[in-house]
Amino acid sequence: MSFSADVITLFPDLFPGPLGASVLGRGMQDGRWHLSTTQLRDFAEDKHRSVDDTPSGGGAGMVLRPDILAKAIDHVSPQGDTRPRLVMSPRGVPLDQARVRRLAAGPGVVIVCGRFEGIDQRVIDARGLEEVSIGDYVLAGGEVAAMVLLEAVVRLLPGVLGTAESHAEESFEDGLLEYPQYTRPQAFEGHAIPAVLTSGDHARIARWRRAEAEALTRKRRPDLIGPSQD
Amino acid sequence: MSFSADVITLFPDLFPGPLGASVLGRGMQDGRWHLSTTQLRDFAEDKHRSVDDTPSGGGAGMVLRPDILAKAIDHVSPQGDTRPRLVMSPRGVPLDQARVRRLAAGPGVVIVCGRFEGIDQRVIDARGLEEVSIGDYVLAGGEVAAMVLLEAVVRLLPGVLGTAESHAEESFEDGLLEYPQYTRPQAFEGHAIPAVLTSGDHARIARWRRAEAEALTRKRRPDLIGPSQD
Repeated sequence: MSFSADVITLFPDLFPGPLGASVLGRGMQDGRWHLSTTQLRDFAEDKHRSVDDTPSGGGAGMVLRPDILAKAIDHVSPQGDTRPRLVMSPRGVPLDQARVRRLAAGPGVVIVCGRFEGIDQRVIDARGLEEVSIGDYVLAGGEVAAMVLLEAVVRLLPGVLGTAESHAEESFEDGLLEYPQYTRPQAFEGHAIPAVLTSGDHARIARWRRAEAEALTRKRRPDLIGPSQD
Repeated sequence: MSFSADVITLFPDLFPGPLGASVLGRGMQDGRWHLSTTQLRDFAEDKHRSVDDTPSGGGAGMVLRPDILAKAIDHVSPQGDTRPRLVMSPRGVPLDQARVRRLAAGPGVVIVCGRFEGIDQRVIDARGLEEVSIGDYVLAGGEVAAMVLLEAVVRLLPGVLGTAESHAEESFEDGLLEYPQYTRPQAFEGHAIPAVLTSGDHARIARWRRAEAEALTRKRRPDLIGPSQD
């Protein structure tokens, strides 16, 4: 069984979009992963195909109805489906590379995308939806957030990336940001590649890169390495 | 002058993609923002249209050449262009809603998207590129990350969101995750909407929501409120 992703959305036409391009699209064509989208409005019960209503207790915006969303979830993910059920939301647990790896090792995902709205808490509880956030900013909807999550996961599936493309993982493998990279030409606007990198001394190169990675991480992301020892 | 975004990418066909849908697409049609894409390969100098080369000092993957990327940047963002020049990268400063607001208040952005590759550090320095990360995970390329950044920024531009859609900002406005939402029906699978929300007592509703938002934030994102006072 290949990795199977189901997305419940008001904008199914946005998919696969970027997920159909490059190595991810090739992986899909090769059957390494599968993507289905489901139009939430297909589960509405009135002639306007409404899926939301005003928030109880007042306030701006609209809230996705629990009954209609529950029907859509039960349709794509019936009892016995072991895939995690995620909803993209700035309220969620922040996505990180460890979570991405766990998802890639599993059977797939079911993802609910909201749009402007909150989601009724009762369907989150009743259907065991896990709220996931891709970062501390607000989007217009969950669709691009779902693409981010799927892109991060699918690139880790066996056979999706070639070896030439797989190095970028380093960044979070060792808990450090990646060291600076250089390539030809040797001189760019009067600036040479650092001499150590063209020295051929592999141990010295490794030490230099490690020191650069540590210095950058300390400067830019001290939260990744914990309190300073000074 | 409306907000002007330029994206330098190896996959210009992915744009506008999700950025052309819904309120963002309507905002684009209404002239509230403008999006241009530039194919980096158009600035290559050999018949294979190469834009990258192997990393100096060894290692897997490929690195974007500084000279070719500099030509592309100078083409879309000549001297005098006051827009920030961003490059999407997991090494970058994490994007947050405060940065999104600052970008939305400015003239636009120039965004460089890498793909599998690092970028030669010399062009990052020489062209003042600011590395921005949308989260602590690794993507196949910068394109979807650029869409995330643009979606977050564009929805804040004047006239893009209607008032009915603008409430979601609450989440990060007060430094707390959003309280749980409920809507009709009154009973869902035997669970009623919390009585306080249908009480009509607005002060009590506000207190309940604040307490729920604080409890959720403390449980799920203690980093947002700092060390516990216990």
